[in-house]
Amino acid sequence: MVAKTKPVKRTRDLEKTRKEILSVAFNEVFRRSFQGVSIDDIVKKTQLTKGALFHQFPTKLDLGYALVDEVIQPMILERWIDPIEAFENPVDGILHQIEELIGKADPRYLRYGCPLNNLMQEMAPVDAGFRDRLQSALRLWISGVEVQLRRGKREGQIKKEVHPKDAAHFIVMAHEGLYGILKGLDDPSAFKSMYRPLKTYLRTLEN
Amino acid sequence: MVAKTKPVKRTRDLEKTRKEILSVAFNEVFRRSFQGVSIDDIVKKTQLTKGALFHQFPTKLDLGYALVDEVIQPMILERWIDPIEAFENPVDGILHQIEELIGKADPRYLRYGCPLNNLMQEMAPVDAGFRDRLQSALRLWISGVEVQLRRGKREGQIKKEVHPKDAAHFIVMAHEGLYGILKGLDDPSAFKSMYRPLKTYLRTLEN
Repeated sequence: MVAKTKPVKRTRDLEKTRKEILSVAFNEVFRRSFQGVSIDDIVKKTQLTKGALFHQFPTKLDLGYALVDEVIQPMILERWIDPIEAFENPVDGILHQIEELIGKADPRYLRYGCPLNNLMQEMAPVDAGFRDRLQSALRLWISGVEVQLRRGKREGQIKKEVHPKDAAHFIVMAHEGLYGILKGLDDPSAFKSMYRPLKTYLRTLEN
Repeated sequence: MVAKTKPVKRTRDLEKTRKEILSVAFNEVFRRSFQGVSIDDIVKKTQLTKGALFHQFPTKLDLGYALVDEVIQPMILERWIDPIEAFENPVDGILHQIEELIGKADPRYLRYGCPLNNLMQEMAPVDAGFRDRLQSALRLWISGVEVQLRRGKREGQIKKEVHPKDAAHFIVMAHEGLYGILKGLDDPSAFKSMYRPLKTYLRTLEN
């Protein structure tokens, strides 16, 4: 019994530790960039030893890669893809999520931009491992939106002549542009200035 | 005579040195981020001593601020505002510049993104001096586009019901989104996927 139970507990603890590290690292990197944060900064914000962190992530890059694969990818699905499925009309879903997650976000949070965009701008040109993972995350987002638009076409909410791949690229581009400008301007009223034309564009996709 | 000539030459030399430093620093920061580049990296790429650099820029931040004020701001005017004035219809000008400067750009160059966006994403949340200067540069861009759209309304190329401030925000947002996604995807065909819907939107502004 003991021999059987112990490894399970250990696995659970390791998973818990991994999640704790990733959560702390995500918040630090989100606020201060990947290159601006050290492993020591992250260790200090956890209850863990440096050894426990290195056990999970032998290098800072390993930790960075896991941030993309294990935090940012699931976040894209949870925030920008899955909720749209709940809407009969995907355009309603896309607009609802933008209003909820960007329009109503705390300006102190928007100042830090989009976690994916931040890492893409910072690390894609610097490191190939990051570039590949960030590309996968971005493609997941674009293709997820494309799938929703195809569904809308099939079910009659979206016009037959809409090109789902183009529109999906454009929609994700607009998300990243929105985050980028809001981060740069630090002026929440700019959201409405960008959202109104975006809404006009998105409504042209509908039947 | 000598006393009169010498200071002029010295001023010219200082200006030349300043421009050389800024040009090298711009290229390094563009490729490797501000925090990823050291003063030593920049000195090595010039013919200058560290002393000559410090004479112009006492700190790395001073150099960074000058990059925004003396390189990026003029670049916005030269690339994205002034050329549009040459077009009777500002929408034609905006589309032409996007095709020329992004659509036809070397993919190796696009991988590094937009110099303004890069610094905004990296430094706006980290340093207030950067934030203020980057905000001014971004506002200069948006208001420059707004002025062009107002001219188009006045002269009849742009529809009366267009809101120039909203449209200008949206257009600059789209630029930053385009650069951001192309940097992330490293796939030049994505340009067309984003450009087609952007063009469709821009054409809706016209009379």
